[in-house]
Order: sequence, then C-alpha cells, then structure tokens
Amino acid sequence: MTRRRLLGVGAGAAALGAVAGVGGAYAAQRGPAALAAGVVPDDQVVAFRGEHQAGITTPAQDRMHFVALDVTTKDPAELRDLLKAWTRAAERMTAGAEAAPGGVVGGGPYGVPEDTGEAYDLDAADLTITIGYGPSLFDDRFGLADKRPEGLRDLPAFVGDDLDPARSGGDLCIQACANDPQVAVHAVRNLVRLGFGVVSVRWSQLGFGRTSSTSRSQTTPRNLFGFKDGTNNVKSEDGAALDEHVWVQPSDVTGGASWLAGGSYLVARRIRMHIEVWDRTTLQEQEQVIGRTKGEGAPLGQKAEFDTLDLDKPGADGKPAIPVDAHVALAHESRLNGIRLLRRGYNFTDGSDGLGHLDAGLFFIAFMRDAQRQFVPMQKALAAEDTLNEYIEHTGSAVFACPPGIGPDEHWGQALFS
Amino acid sequence: MTRRRLLGVGAGAAALGAVAGVGGAYAAQRGPAALAAGVVPDDQVVAFRGEHQAGITTPAQDRMHFVALDVTTKDPAELRDLLKAWTRAAERMTAGAEAAPGGVVGGGPYGVPEDTGEAYDLDAADLTITIGYGPSLFDDRFGLADKRPEGLRDLPAFVGDDLDPARSGGDLCIQACANDPQVAVHAVRNLVRLGFGVVSVRWSQLGFGRTSSTSRSQTTPRNLFGFKDGTNNVKSEDGAALDEHVWVQPSDVTGGASWLAGGSYLVARRIRMHIEVWDRTTLQEQEQVIGRTKGEGAPLGQKAEFDTLDLDKPGADGKPAIPVDAHVALAHESRLNGIRLLRRGYNFTDGSDGLGHLDAGLFFIAFMRDAQRQFVPMQKALAAEDTLNEYIEHTGSAVFACPPGIGPDEHWGQALFS
Repeated sequence: MTRRRLLGVGAGAAALGAVAGVGGAYAAQRGPAALAAGVVPDDQVVAFRGEHQAGITTPAQDRMHFVALDVTTKDPAELRDLLKAWTRAAERMTAGAEAAPGGVVGGGPYGVPEDTGEAYDLDAADLTITIGYGPSLFDDRFGLADKRPEGLRDLPAFVGDDLDPARSGGDLCIQACANDPQVAVHAVRNLVRLGFGVVSVRWSQLGFGRTSSTSRSQTTPRNLFGFKDGTNNVKSEDGAALDEHVWVQPSDVTGGASWLAGGSYLVARRIRMHIEVWDRTTLQEQEQVIGRTKGEGAPLGQKAEFDTLDLDKPGADGKPAIPVDAHVALAHESRLNGIRLLRRGYNFTDGSDGLGHLDAGLFFIAFMRDAQRQFVPMQKALAAEDTLNEYIEHTGSAVFACPPGIGPDEHWGQALFS
Repeated sequence: MTRRRLLGVGAGAAALGAVAGVGGAYAAQRGPAALAAGVVPDDQVVAFRGEHQAGITTPAQDRMHFVALDVTTKDPAELRDLLKAWTRAAERMTAGAEAAPGGVVGGGPYGVPEDTGEAYDLDAADLTITIGYGPSLFDDRFGLADKRPEGLRDLPAFVGDDLDPARSGGDLCIQACANDPQVAVHAVRNLVRLGFGVVSVRWSQLGFGRTSSTSRSQTTPRNLFGFKDGTNNVKSEDGAALDEHVWVQPSDVTGGASWLAGGSYLVARRIRMHIEVWDRTTLQEQEQVIGRTKGEGAPLGQKAEFDTLDLDKPGADGKPAIPVDAHVALAHESRLNGIRLLRRGYNFTDGSDGLGHLDAGLFFIAFMRDAQRQFVPMQKALAAEDTLNEYIEHTGSAVFACPPGIGPDEHWGQALFS
C-alpha cells in the first residue's frame, strides 16, 4: 500500500487540482485522522505518541538519516514554536502523509508547496522520528539552564579520539529511521525546512544498513568488519532491563530536569573503520579481536550465536577461549559493573578518504539511562584496551537527551518549556 | 530466500567448520554452479553474462554504490589479471555468493578471509556490477592508446560547471546496483580489495534512491525536487531505441576500438541540488521550471503522466503551456535533433555542506551510444538556457566506455587486451 494508492479516486481530482490551482485536495484522506479512521493501513506505521519516543525500542529499521542542528534564533518562543510545528509534521509523516495538509500542491500555484514531495508515492516504511537535546541547548540563551539534567554534559576526551568538530556536537538532533531511505531523508529535510531561520544543519549522517537488532523478532545484522553486531543487545522485549539500562527513571531527574523522566540519553559516535587493514588480517586474528566466530557469530569456544558468552571458559590451550582484551569481553556487563546499552547503529560509506580508500564505518548510536554512568566508563575501558582500536577511529561524537514520549495533545517542547 | 537460508543444514556444519578451522564448507552449495544447478533460486539474480552488461537496461534497482578508480600499477598484465579476477568475483556476487569460494571462513584460521562478510546473510537483491573504462586508461601506460574509441574523451567544460577534481574522472569505474544497499557496498568493497596494489579509489558515491525507471514495469520515482524523473526515459522494452541511442553499433567503432561494439558510454555527473532555495519557490515556479505538474507528473497542459509531451500546445494565455526554457522542453529530443539517453541516476545526501545545509542532489548517470554526440550537445543546451540551473550545480563529472557483455568463458578485459 503506497501513499499514492491511498488516494484512490482522489489522485485524479488532485491532478486536476494541481492544474486548476486548487490545493488541499488530499488533506481529508491522509494523515493521522485518516489513520485513526482506518483509511490508512497501519502495517507500516509506527505509533508516534506513547509513553516513550518511537525509534528507540522500535525494531531497528534498515535505513537511517540523522541530523544535528544548531539553534540560530535567540528567541525561546521561536524555538518552542518550532518544536510544536515539528511535532505536527513528524506525526503526519510517520503516519504516511506529507509534512503538512495539502501535500505537494498545498497552497495552490502561487503558494510554496508545504511538502517537498520526494516521498509522495512511497510507503510509510515504519518511519520513526526521534528528537534529542544537546548540552549546549541548556546554556544561557533560552532560559533552560535550570533544566539541564546532570548527566547531559559533553563527553570527555577518550584515548585515541580523532574527532572532527564539524561532525560533532549540536544543540538538537533528529534521528529518522525507516525501511526506505528516501522516506528517512524526506523526513529530515522537511523538518530542517520548517526550521529555516530558527535552526541550521550542523552535520548529518546517512546510514545505509542497520547494525543492531533491538527486538528478538529480528535477525542480527553484520557490520562492515563482516561480523554480526548486537547479538547481546538490550532488546525491546526485556522490560526490566529497559527500565534499568535505557529509560531515565523519575528518581534520576529531580527539580528542573524532571522533564526527562521516561526519556533516554543518545550517544552518537562516527567510527571510521579501516577496512583495508582489517581485510588483510587472518580469520583467527579477526575472531580473536572480536571474540566471536565470523560465520555463525558464536562466542569463541561455543557453537551458536546465542550461546551464553562465558568469559572464563578455557580454549584448547587452557587460556580463556575469548581473549581478555577481545571486544566482547571488554564490553561485557560482567566486566563493567553491569553496564549495558541499547545499541541502534548503522553502517555508512561517505565517498572516499582522498587517500585511495573508501570512507566507511559504523555510525554508532546507543540509548541509555545515563550517558555519564554508562557510555563514559564503557568507552574508557574500550579506548584503553580494546584490540579493535587498531582498526577503528572515532571521528565524530555527540550526546543528546531524548525527552519521553508525548500524549495526545502534547508537543515535543511542552515539558521543556512549561 | 537469503544467502544464509540457502545453506540449510550446511549452516551448522559451516559453524562447526569455523570453530574447527576447516574452511570452504560453503563452497559446494553456493555460487554460479549452485545457481545453474537450481540450488540457488534465481528470482533475485540478474544474469551476469549476455550480449550486453547487466546494470544498464536492467530495471533500475533501488540503491547504488559507484566507485571510480585509478590504476596504480604500470604493468598491463597486472591490470588484465585484475579484470579477470574481478569477473570471477562479480559473477559470484551477482549470483548471491561470496566474492570467492569458502566465504567468510575460506582459507581457514591462518588465512585471510576471501570475502569481507557483511553481505553474508543477505539476498542477492538483484545485484548488477557494471564496469567502465575512462579516457585516461588509454594513455601510454598500458599499450591501449590504439584502442581508445573516438568518442571516449574528457567532456568539455560547460557553462556553470563547478567541478571538484576529487569527484571527477577516473581510469575505471564500477557501478554496483542492488535493492539492498549493503549488497551494493559489499560488491564495490570486495572488488576494491581484490585490486589492492593495482588500483586505488579515486572517488565513490552512494545513491540511496533511484531517480529513473528503465522498464515499463516500473513506476516513475521522484528526485529531490519532489518531481517524477525519467517519465520519458528510454526503456528496456524499446529495442529499436536501444540500438539507436544506447548500444554502440559495430559500425561506430572500427579498428582498435572495435572491442566497444555492443557496449555503451556512461556519463556520470554529481549534481548538487540547492534544495533550500527550491523549497522556498512557489508551486507554479517549480512546475514552470520543470514543465510538468508536481503531483501527477503530467506535461503542463495535460492530465496524466504519460500523456504525450506537446511543446506547442497553448496554455490559457495562448503561449505554450510548457515554457520554451522549461527543463523538459530543452531536454526533449525534438529540440535536440532526436538525441535521447538512457538515464539511470540516484538521489544522494552526503552529510552537510558546512554552511548549515544538507549536501544533497542527484547523481546523474546516463548510458548512450556516443557521449560526444549525445550528452555533450544536450548538456550544452541545458547549461546555456535551462531555468533549472538556478537551483543546481554540477560538482563532479566523468565519462567511461562500458564494454559489451561477455560470453561463458570470457572475462571483462578479454576484448581490450586481445
């Protein structure tokens, strides 16, 4: 079922409307109201409102477009109004409709189309749009300094970081995930467009393939090292683990920061992979670095992907089958005082590096209850010891606080500006 | 049907093989032989061999990874051997197998895996791999100067060009198209890897959404201006038009250049779209610039997308409904002495431009019988008069000659080096 097919006889009328200059012919048949009325089928629509934002525990879609923005206005009211406008547009787009009623011909011939149009014939494609606020949003520009959650601070420098400021930070972020990349790109572009004069693009990243599963219903995908990634991820079915590791609990955020209860921290790291070097190492070296077999994805010393990871199980030589400095060992909760994250990253390729190689890697995204208490100690451990560091380089970094989900009449900025 | 599922009981055996260090467990069940034997289902496999290369008239797949390479060796034999190795790997990958027998565990623990692995569980996804040779390959390095087809010359400068040398030219190109981007990226990466020491990456481009249909069985997609693109494209069903406009005819290439008969010229242009400016113009302006309606894609003055484009049909004011400087008017064969191209481009987004905008546009690819007689006059006309130029900028450019298809025992370099 495509957006176009939803139109039924309306399509002809709309075409006539475009010729005759009559806009808005589509409006009554599309969008959330049409979805609620059952006109729009919901098998590719992820609910936009709810206790938590969509796009976190939602089964990871195949493609992603992520954008970090800086706020250019000095007027808090403009920012609040934009968050309101974004909420309306995001709700419509996730329901398979255009960003505003009337679609590509809305406003008539002398008006500017209210939707840019490139997703006009496409499915809803499980689009989710997730918003986050960076530490810099809570400086003295918008009167939000009292509302900054304690955990929302710039990440410290880690050993080996090679961060590009042009790929790091941001006042705001929008993560758009969908099973059709054009739907994700369309969503980001239309929100950026609505923000003209209020925000500007700081950086953006396209992810072409998911590297994590976030539901037991999904198979585990592979990263660009050719290994399955995210086998041991926190999954959406793990209710208690989500409360413990992913969702900010009310007791975590008191006073001005209470707006974040039910939300989550998002850490983004652009990790360049030196695939040319990796591709010249032996299978044994690769498996020892990761700690799993390449074909099946089983923990070393075990047979199947989901066999329990046992860091003490000895190999043939009596030493642990999984080396103590293997990636899965260092990142394992048993070595990190129980720390776990919900990872939701994507593979990327961004042209070439100008030195004869593809510029490719993993755009790491993880959601967690507290960035300072979870990502920071984990990354400190990995940066210090992970044998994988020989093959990777962190080139971008950002942290955002993603507010909780919103109720029927609420908008994204409501709790923050109330 | 995924690559993984093809394994059946073989999957367990292969996992054991990986643990026990026994490589090659997959080989017998995969690849072209398995395809021929009916073990691999062919509903997602595009034939690799044939009269013409796949990836030209093949119904345009949804995603693309394109790479331009420079040859770094000075030894013609190394180049020829690489073309032979590429042919083997490309045939295997398009058949849904790994780049070499044995897959991710081939060679055993002390060997380097012969496939990088990230497409290991994925479908064949209609992968096609198309090779092309740039003008610079026919300089004096490899003894190919006598074999340069007359039409294979660098494109002239066009008015308004803003070409980045780092995104232009190349001795060779590989176009990988598939319905899964990870399959396309995997193909390019594994071919680049095979070329280590012989070629290096000059530039590469990921295209996330097709902007052309090349078969009447496909719907017309939309570009990032939100308009349907390629309605009037040469289609794979147009046999006579293909011979006239797309395939190099034997009479076109005499003497040393005869290897190109049955091939085609590929012109690539990276066209940055200033979407922020476009998105602030009225519907009327947009439709007048393009010459079609935005919603339906009908020629102005007509009702339906495939209504005949009539450049003389008057509008309400008595002037032509389609402005004489509209994009579809200037690019129409009737204004270009019958010139037509087979377009096969893709939408792209490459992060941000550092100035607050998304870096997005159209990676234009077109195939044609003669680049000098088709693309050059067309682009001259468009560069001089097209009102669309206000909103676009050509930032990369390249031309390649794509050899014809190959028979059962041939390889890509055979005709060139014979």
